[in-house]
Amino acid sequence: MDLNEKLILHEDSVSGNCYKIRLTAALLGRRMELIAYDILKGETRTPEFLATINPLGRIPVLQVGQRFLPESNAACFYLADGSPLIPAERFARADMLRWMFFEQYHHEPNVATLRFWLEFVGVDSLSEMQRNQIPGKRIAGEAALQQMDDHLALRNWFVGESVTLADISLFAYTHVAEGGGFALSDYPHVQAWIARMRALPKFVAMAG
Amino acid sequence: MDLNEKLILHEDSVSGNCYKIRLTAALLGRRMELIAYDILKGETRTPEFLATINPLGRIPVLQVGQRFLPESNAACFYLADGSPLIPAERFARADMLRWMFFEQYHHEPNVATLRFWLEFVGVDSLSEMQRNQIPGKRIAGEAALQQMDDHLALRNWFVGESVTLADISLFAYTHVAEGGGFALSDYPHVQAWIARMRALPKFVAMAG
Repeated sequence: MDLNEKLILHEDSVSGNCYKIRLTAALLGRRMELIAYDILKGETRTPEFLATINPLGRIPVLQVGQRFLPESNAACFYLADGSPLIPAERFARADMLRWMFFEQYHHEPNVATLRFWLEFVGVDSLSEMQRNQIPGKRIAGEAALQQMDDHLALRNWFVGESVTLADISLFAYTHVAEGGGFALSDYPHVQAWIARMRALPKFVAMAG
Repeated sequence: MDLNEKLILHEDSVSGNCYKIRLTAALLGRRMELIAYDILKGETRTPEFLATINPLGRIPVLQVGQRFLPESNAACFYLADGSPLIPAERFARADMLRWMFFEQYHHEPNVATLRFWLEFVGVDSLSEMQRNQIPGKRIAGEAALQQMDDHLALRNWFVGESVTLADISLFAYTHVAEGGGFALSDYPHVQAWIARMRALPKFVAMAG
């Protein structure tokens, strides 16, 4: 990494997707400037934000010099490229990405969305279309947590013998899943892995 | 890549997620054995499949020797690692992953799911919960296609000056999006890019 290239994280401190990037940077000992936005106030939907930072109107976005990188897991990959947080062995590297795609497809849309709806928006403020989706997201989120628990029954980390971006990516919304109404006590191997994550040197917690 | 290690793709020929892997292998000139499953007949939910191939009961799964790799984009990354289909420059490599995560989060759950529901399951066989989700998936799918069209207005490929896994990943369900009721004529830059994809040396079409 060009250490002279300035890093800015456009973020919201309550977002797990933003936290992934902060945790990756912390474990690598890499500094970033933080610029905060409030999603609920529409601060990522202004014409300036859409034109300059991310046409999707979403955070996080990692700014590298004058280039902008949306998608949390891609930003983590940029930061960690060449470090031990990405396995050097070819199959393990792809297997790490497998869990990161699992996170964005099976986990985040269910576990993170229910947390956002129930803890931050509030159930009374949801649209009917959103309320109709709660039961399906509950089932799918529980299935994702169960997959994680089954996988961790036999190993300490998702891929290989040490922490990788797969763990960081999945940790972000898992450790706050109770905010979405999920009972972590149902997943003892996940709970033990959460404790291992928290014990990592240079670990930083989520809330500001 | 260890060319002695046997590759087997567990797949369904009508799945765009499976096609991504076949297209990647074709562009690389890499042979794979194919084992076909019919999702609609539950052939990926048998106890044997769940125990051995993928506990999520989903295809594609790329088998590398005795190791199993689910998640289509991770399998593409495994095959293409070290090839020109993955940019050598650090930011571009992460930017390629950005579009692959975009594909799994913003595109596939909308564009691919509507194609599956409308073309393969049939609207009359959908559950009420599925039917309720159609309007939201229509809006989100159109937004994803519009993002792609805006991005391609200024460039030939999603990242850099040549085809990468980002193009392959997004091509899979975009070029058959009309099966989900999306009008590709609304996205002229996407249409031009589809033509460029089809003109690639060693390109293979989707259907068997």
